[in-house]
Amino acid sequence: MNLIQPIDEQPHFFDDFAKGHVYRFGDEPVTEDAIIAFGRSFDMLPFHVDAEAAKRSVFGGLVASGWHTSALMMRMLVRHFLSPEGVLASPGIDTIRWTASVRPDDRLSMKLTIAKAEKSASKPDRGRVLFDIEILNQDQAIVMTATAITIYRTAPSSGR
Amino acid sequence: MNLIQPIDEQPHFFDDFAKGHVYRFGDEPVTEDAIIAFGRSFDMLPFHVDAEAAKRSVFGGLVASGWHTSALMMRMLVRHFLSPEGVLASPGIDTIRWTASVRPDDRLSMKLTIAKAEKSASKPDRGRVLFDIEILNQDQAIVMTATAITIYRTAPSSGR
Repeated sequence: MNLIQPIDEQPHFFDDFAKGHVYRFGDEPVTEDAIIAFGRSFDMLPFHVDAEAAKRSVFGGLVASGWHTSALMMRMLVRHFLSPEGVLASPGIDTIRWTASVRPDDRLSMKLTIAKAEKSASKPDRGRVLFDIEILNQDQAIVMTATAITIYRTAPSSGR
Repeated sequence: MNLIQPIDEQPHFFDDFAKGHVYRFGDEPVTEDAIIAFGRSFDMLPFHVDAEAAKRSVFGGLVASGWHTSALMMRMLVRHFLSPEGVLASPGIDTIRWTASVRPDDRLSMKLTIAKAEKSASKPDRGRVLFDIEILNQDQAIVMTATAITIYRTAPSSGR
């Protein structure tokens, strides 16, 4: 089952982006095992690794680490959106908010809006693209928002 | 070998924090295997998973995913700093910057400065604490900065 259809035309290079473009993609299952495995490796707080202890937490049950949700966002970006030939690097990300709990058996998808696309003043072969990201669960509730900064190569033939 | 000494007195509750307090802790090794394993799971771009392809990237060699560095930051926080009895949740994180590459055989540590500590106006049993975080490598170069927002319980005996 695909919650969200694949993108018809994947943006490959800086030239393919324009402010206001919206893309929807991804369908990542979140299992209890995966939540606990990620928690044990990186975020060992009781509500990420121990279902019984999690019941007594403010969450009332096991929830995914926000870093796990962030990593699943990245998995969706790489699987469905980022072009390996176009993307050069990311200097960082702004204003991550974990707005609702991610729980076992959720399925996550993504809405990505181009907030800005500006060519580099110093390096004409690249530009900076800002993605406003929303991660949604199967009920279309927003579980995470963030603004990601990416550096894209201009198209090889680009004279724009 | 510990790059950074353990904290003498771990802050447990909201009451233990004050603006300007500085804490240093952590000593996380980063192996090539761990970089590739994280990359294969979540961030499959060539420069995180393929040492040969990485040589031809802007990084000139294998580098850790920024999300891997973020997850290692969280591991250091949970291992050395966050008190399970005091920390309630995190609504998010601001302004992550991956300022230098994290490479195989690096060792990461952390400098954490309290940027703000404010009691909740509506819920007197808790308060919001902002951590300004720097992640450093073994040469004391800053590889990542971020501001994390955490919600802490006030001390059980707190009348402050």
